[in-house]
Order: sequence, then structure tokens, then C-alpha cells
Amino acid sequence: MLNVSIAPDGKKYPLPTEQENEKEREILKQITAEQRKLGRKIVAVQGLGFVGCVMATVVADATDKDGNPYYFVHGHQRASKRSYWKVPVINSGVPPVASSDPEVPQIFHRTVVEKKNFRATSEESVYGLVDVVVVDIQLDATKPSFGEAEKGYCDLLAFREGIRTLGQHIRPDCLVLVETTVPPGTCEKVVKPILEEEFTKRGIDVAANPPLVAHSYERVMPGAKYVASIRDFWRVFSGVNEKSIELCREFLSNCLNVEEYPLTQLDSTNASELAKTMENTYRAVNIALTLEWARFAEQIGVDIFKVREAIRKRKGTHDNLLRPSLGVGGYCLTKDPVLANWAMQTLFGLEGSLEMAIRSVNINDTMPLHTIEIIKREFESLSNLKVAVLGVSYLENVGDTRHSPSKTLVEFLRKEFATALTHDPYVEAWPELDESKVESDLNAVLPGADVVIFAVGHDQYKGLKPAEVVAMCGTKPLIVDCSNFLSDATIAEYKKLGCKVRGVGKGHIV
Amino acid sequence: MLNVSIAPDGKKYPLPTEQENEKEREILKQITAEQRKLGRKIVAVQGLGFVGCVMATVVADATDKDGNPYYFVHGHQRASKRSYWKVPVINSGVPPVASSDPEVPQIFHRTVVEKKNFRATSEESVYGLVDVVVVDIQLDATKPSFGEAEKGYCDLLAFREGIRTLGQHIRPDCLVLVETTVPPGTCEKVVKPILEEEFTKRGIDVAANPPLVAHSYERVMPGAKYVASIRDFWRVFSGVNEKSIELCREFLSNCLNVEEYPLTQLDSTNASELAKTMENTYRAVNIALTLEWARFAEQIGVDIFKVREAIRKRKGTHDNLLRPSLGVGGYCLTKDPVLANWAMQTLFGLEGSLEMAIRSVNINDTMPLHTIEIIKREFESLSNLKVAVLGVSYLENVGDTRHSPSKTLVEFLRKEFATALTHDPYVEAWPELDESKVESDLNAVLPGADVVIFAVGHDQYKGLKPAEVVAMCGTKPLIVDCSNFLSDATIAEYKKLGCKVRGVGKGHIV
Repeated sequence: MLNVSIAPDGKKYPLPTEQENEKEREILKQITAEQRKLGRKIVAVQGLGFVGCVMATVVADATDKDGNPYYFVHGHQRASKRSYWKVPVINSGVPPVASSDPEVPQIFHRTVVEKKNFRATSEESVYGLVDVVVVDIQLDATKPSFGEAEKGYCDLLAFREGIRTLGQHIRPDCLVLVETTVPPGTCEKVVKPILEEEFTKRGIDVAANPPLVAHSYERVMPGAKYVASIRDFWRVFSGVNEKSIELCREFLSNCLNVEEYPLTQLDSTNASELAKTMENTYRAVNIALTLEWARFAEQIGVDIFKVREAIRKRKGTHDNLLRPSLGVGGYCLTKDPVLANWAMQTLFGLEGSLEMAIRSVNINDTMPLHTIEIIKREFESLSNLKVAVLGVSYLENVGDTRHSPSKTLVEFLRKEFATALTHDPYVEAWPELDESKVESDLNAVLPGADVVIFAVGHDQYKGLKPAEVVAMCGTKPLIVDCSNFLSDATIAEYKKLGCKVRGVGKGHIV
Repeated sequence: MLNVSIAPDGKKYPLPTEQENEKEREILKQITAEQRKLGRKIVAVQGLGFVGCVMATVVADATDKDGNPYYFVHGHQRASKRSYWKVPVINSGVPPVASSDPEVPQIFHRTVVEKKNFRATSEESVYGLVDVVVVDIQLDATKPSFGEAEKGYCDLLAFREGIRTLGQHIRPDCLVLVETTVPPGTCEKVVKPILEEEFTKRGIDVAANPPLVAHSYERVMPGAKYVASIRDFWRVFSGVNEKSIELCREFLSNCLNVEEYPLTQLDSTNASELAKTMENTYRAVNIALTLEWARFAEQIGVDIFKVREAIRKRKGTHDNLLRPSLGVGGYCLTKDPVLANWAMQTLFGLEGSLEMAIRSVNINDTMPLHTIEIIKREFESLSNLKVAVLGVSYLENVGDTRHSPSKTLVEFLRKEFATALTHDPYVEAWPELDESKVESDLNAVLPGADVVIFAVGHDQYKGLKPAEVVAMCGTKPLIVDCSNFLSDATIAEYKKLGCKVRGVGKGHIV
């Protein structure tokens, strides 16, 4: 199917033709002119992924004290087969992401349909029309070898292309606000030089018109407060020169709830880029520690979760301690330590490595193997074992499967010739795993199960009654609790029904 | 000088003779009988070190709602030359530890002199007279090779002897409450078996009279709230059987402020022992992370302390993030991760290691070398360099030098033939370092200094004016700030005076 982009619901959207693009360019100019007449500044958001599409609505939704929008927002998404569908979907007033936050569909409808100050396009000429570009290009770390994050790197090719596109189109006084989590050093060593290069090609004197580049990282959390996690939360920012800093401060102050969550300015983009990656590394390290100790606790009959609660009583000094689980997923903790380590060695050419950071990623990435170890203690072989995996997203009550630890779990179960059937009430498709089918009916995964793994803490799973589960299985499965989802009372019920129960960090059960 | 114990102030105390011991045994019996008549239970505290001596006063100070003391407390310290002096000093109503907490001398005077329900002795027969023994024997980890904590172990010899002494004397219904931080497993695998062995030797049927062993760890902090950190703080406890748990709960509830700081009971002594070592490992790991990133930040012109403040804005999830410094000292973070790793491998015979824990200790132990690296960037050779080290304790405004990172700093400076002169307003003697003299007058260390290291954040140092320092030096020394003690304004002043300023994690200075 050439030149068609297919949305997750299966609906097909033909990519725009050159004629359509021609027409779109005229529409963009016309809309922009109209919006300028209304006194609005014009913003483009580059990349309508997980952060970009919601950030765009937050910017469009921001109003002055009289209730007038500050900005008109153009959302830009390249016309790729993988992602173009987002453009027509957004323009119908519908979010391109699934979310449990009721504010998500509301804010899309409000900005696109009611206020009509957010519109998506695939035409990159849009960048020539705007005052601010918010860069939300996705940028991942590549980890070529499982459990060896020290070999990880950051492929900046697509990111650099995106920035080059900006350099070819933007006005010299346009602020480029990088919101993507980037390796420390990126604004100074990648973004600024590319813009300077393109400006120079266009005959712009970069001494008189130095590119305006700022950095401010989001702290978005999927789930029930998705929109609020962008708008109503502390922000850190910085810029490569005074003007960038001022424009960035003004922009963020207009869009975000800075009265309740004041901005923090850092001295340089190096500093704010480092802050973001350190912030997530802090949590990655914290989790890696808990896994080590969970394993120890398990073997000496201790419930690590009760230990954790005892330690966390020390508010302010010990209450950040996280809990062990199947593993670490999502888009931040799995890659940010790697971005920083790579930046240190490559962008800055420094010696050494961020040892705690890298080691934590390795421990966390290989964490799901520990759940397999737990199963192996109970069965001679995993071959032909029927394993029901409850939960494939990386977070409870959320359908996001990016870097989900359940993927590693299923892959390694398959490697040992076990049959893994997966279930998740929030996940329709699991694009990250080949030959995967995610069931929404427990009756499709439980009957005949030798092992039932509570992999994710979705409310539905926590509410399951042991008698129901055992009845659906028709067996007395081994129950594996990956993160203290089952209470001691529930565990006792499973035992009464003849099931063995095991759990990550739950040594007291045995 | 045989048979004499010398106090830190130089005063000499002859060790007791056998005749004196004979007399002391009678006195102990008599006092105990009198105190029992007053309706008080009798407690012994084993080991009058840093924790034990203050814990003893807290127990003695505890009263029922009518203001009557619950307990009479015998503090026991062996008649060694190193420590016997504490017995007569305490019995004169004076604390055997220096502290900035005004409550310390008060509570010693109140319990020893006024209430007369705390008394120290070196006679071990005291254990035969008591209802509760609180074990506060010092227990350290041995790290035979610098920077290789994986080779660390715990020499339990003296601890086992101490417990054996209890087994030889205590009544079978006496509660042994271990407060010492011990390797996980110690109560079950060391304390209980030794007591059983000694009970059996004494003809006590351990089936009918199983030893009563509990564990509850302190969270004492030296400094201005020393006493409160024992009495007014959350406690975790556990016991090896129901009766131990009940007696322990009753004892702690009588002595501590459990209304404001409720007790947390864990399922086993393994659990509470593990909790203590994990609690401190959590902080050790946290600091190790900051050092790595401090080094990175330093090299890319970033102030890690400002980054830290930006991250810590996220209260509840990120505000435990600690700060980098000269290094980690004191008696907890330097050894507890090692105790746990050793226990896992030796007491429990388990495979693997606590990798994050051990690595953090190695990073922290070798941290002071980073400050030397900072100096080396500025001088061709350290040979004959005159270095003034301001601060040799391990904590600000405290005179405690145990495992102080300044020791490593001075040792490695000496290794490179630098002359290190040390100053500390709180420290009179520095027993841990050979050939050390700690000055209390800045004029004894600053004149002619090539380098001035702000090693510890004592208030006195933070208040120093750059002009004063430079005048006393008579040189333009390199100023090294180990943990953000100097404000940006102070740094600017030093620069104005012609000094270079460098600092751990302070890349923006350069």
C-alpha cells in the first residue's frame, strides 16, 4: 500500500500529493495572516508524538487575562506512512494518542474545533511563518546489545535533519525551543551550529542575528493527569543567549501554570540538558538498587515492600525510594542515562563513564529475567509451559507499551520454548513485539495456564478474586506477583486453593 | 603505662583491681535491689560508645505519666585501657562524648546526678541482674583494600564475645535488644545460637526458655539534635519470637516518643537488619551518583548544585537527591553496604553481590582523590606544595572524625609529597590519622598556603571573608570548594583578589 498512512484503528489516509501540498502552503499563509490580525503570535510544534501533540494543545489553550488566546499553533508532522495519519485525525478534533486522562479529548476538541487555534500540517514551509518553534522530535538511545548499556549511543541523524529543516525556513528572530530530551551538549554543539550553517547559506549574518535557541524539558507522565503534567508542573529552562532566555521565559510563562509552579532558570543549555538526564538517572539508579535488594530479601525470607515502607517513613530523606518490579519501561529511565554517558564520551570527548548510570540501566533492562528465574525455581523446564502474562504496558492503568519490560519477559520465555499468552485491558496492539497478540479477555489467556504472572498493576488485576482466576485456569497455576500487587490475604487465598505463590522481593511467602 | 585508661582530656583513670571489682559486684546487687523496690525495671546497655551512652540516658530519662522513671540503667563498658575512662566520667555526671547538642550534658546530669537512675560499670556480672540488655557494641566493616569494598568483611569476633558474655549471665527471661547495626541475619544466625549454647551450658532448657532476642535500629545523627535523633524519631523493630516482640514493643514504647513517631514492626529480625543496611545504602548510592555527575558537570561548565536544586523541586519523588562533596564519612554509609554484601555471601552463602551497593562505596571511598585531581589540574607537581585543609570531621559543625574523607585527602596529599596542614574548630585530636595535628587557629595553617581546601562546611568557614583568608595566607592560593560552601559572590571576590577558585561539581567557575 503505497502512499497511505494507516491509523491504529485501521483507517487509511492517503499521503498528500504535491498539488495538495501546494494548496496547503497557501492555506497556511492565509491562516497565519488571519491569526496575526487577531493579535496572536504563531507557534509551530515540530513532531506530534507523545509530548508534542499535547504540548501543542496546551500552548493553544493558553489565554491572557481577558480570555484571548496568546497563540495560534501549527502542529507539524512529516508526511511519513507511519505518522501522517495524525494530521487528519488531529484536524478532526480527535487526539492521536489514547489516554485515561479525560482532559485529553477535551483539550483537543476545545483548541481544534472550538477555539480553532490549533491545526496540524505536514508542510514544512510552515516554519517560515512562526515566532516560536517547539522541538518535540523523538530521539531515542540505541542499545545494540542487551544488558550492555555501555555500548549504547544516540543516533542524531533524524534530529539533525529536523533542525536543519528549521534552519532552512525560520525567520532569524524565531525562537527554537528544544523540548526533546537530548544528550547534554546538544543545543550548543548540534542545534546552534546547524542553524548558523543554514542561516549563513541563506545570507543571514549570524553575528548580527545569532540563532535563538532555548531548552526546557517536560516532565510528562502518561495516565490520568497527562495534560496537567505538562501544564501544571515545575519547569526548568535555559538558553544560549540573553534574548533566547527572555523569549523562552515569556513563552513558558504564557503557556504554563507558573504561578503555582514557578520556573527554574539554569545557567546554560548544558545545565538544563544535564538536569533532565540526571533527574531520570536518579530514578533508574534508585530502582536498580531495589532490585538487587529484592533478590537478597527474597532469598532470606524478607518482604522487601514492607522494608521499603519502613525506610520511607523518613520523609524528606528516604521517601523517594522506589519499588522493585518486573522491570523498568517507558521512554525516559531506559534511555536518559545512556544519552548522558554517550554525550560525555562523544559530544564532549571526556574520559571515563557514568558508571552508576550505566550499571543501573543494565540491571533494570535485565530485570525481567529475574521473574523467569523465579519460575525456573518451580519447574524443571520452561519448555511447553503455558504462561499467562497479565499486563504488557509499562505502567499501571495506562496502555503505553514503549520499552515495556513485559516484552523482554515474553521474548525470554519464548527463547526457552514456553508459550506466553498476553493480556492487557489497555493495549490493543503491541507494535514493539513480533508475532504478538494482546488479549482483552482473560478467558483467552488463563485456561490451562501453568503460570500466571501479574506483570503490571492494572486495577483490573488487583481486583481479581483468586477463586475466579483458579476457576478460569482450570489448573492450580503458579502465581507470580511482580510488584506486591497481591495482599497477604489474597496470597493466603491462592494458597488455600492449592496454588503456589511467588513474588519479586517477597521472600516471606515461601 | 599499664592498667591506666586515658580520657581525651588527658586525665588518667587506673583500671579497677580484682578487689575493687569484688566490691563493685556487691554495690551492683545492692543498687539493683533498691531500685527494684522502687518498682523500676532494670536495664543494662552493653557498650557506651556513640549510640550506647546517649541511649542509656534516654532510657533512664523515660518516666510514666506520674513522672516516675520506668527503669534503672546500668551502662556497661569493659575495663579496657582504650575505653574504661568512660565509666568514672559518666558516673561524675559528664557525657563521654563531645556534642553541639545542649541536651547531651543536661540529660547526663539529670539521669546520673539528679534522678540517680543511670550508672556506669565495668563489671559484667551486671547482666545477671537485669530485665533488658540493649546491645550497643561497636561493629565495623573491615575493608582491607582501598577502593575495593567487594573485599570487605565483618569481623564478628568481639561482637560474638559480647553476646557470649550475655549468655553466661542473663536470666532466661531477659530481653536482648540488639541496637547495633549488624549484618542481616545476625540475630537469627549469631546472637540466638550463642545464647542457646550458653543457656544450655548453664542447664537452662532452651525449648522451654528460648532466648528473647529483638532488633531495633537507631537512626542517630550527631550534631545539634543528637538526643532527639534517638528519642524523637521513627523506629523499626522486630523479634525472633512473639514474646521478644512484645517485650521490645513495650520497652521502646516506654522510652521513646512513639506518639509522634509510631513504631514500625517488621516480620523478622532479618527484615529489620536488612532495612537498616538498605536505608544507609540508599544514601550511599545516591551520593555516588552525584559524584559521577559532578565530575561530568565540572568538565562541561555546569554547576551541579544548581542542577540539584532544579531536580529537587519535584518534592516526594526527587527531593532526596544528595550533594557531592569531598567524600563520605561517618560510621554508617561507609560500612553498612559492605555489611549487607558480606552477610549475603557469607552468613547466607548466596551467590552474586550487591553491585550497586559495593560500587557506591568504592566511588565514595575514593571521592577525595577527585579533589586532588582538581588541584593537579593547576599545579605541575604536588611535591612541596603547602595545602591548608579546612575541616577534618566528616560532618559540618560536628567534631566527629570517624572515617572522615579528610583522612584520605591528607594521606594522598602526603603520598605525593605535599605538606598538608589541617584545621578544625571542633576537633582536638584526630586518632584515626598518624602524625596528625589539628590546629584550631587559622594562623597556624594558612600562612604561605599554595592551596586552601574548604573540605567541610563548618559555619566558621562559610563565614570567612576572602580578604581575611588571602591576607592570612600572604599568597594568592588556589581555593578549592568541596561542596558548594562558597557563594558565587564569594567566589567572585576571591577572583578579584587574584586567586583561582575551583570546586567539586562547579564547572561554571572556570
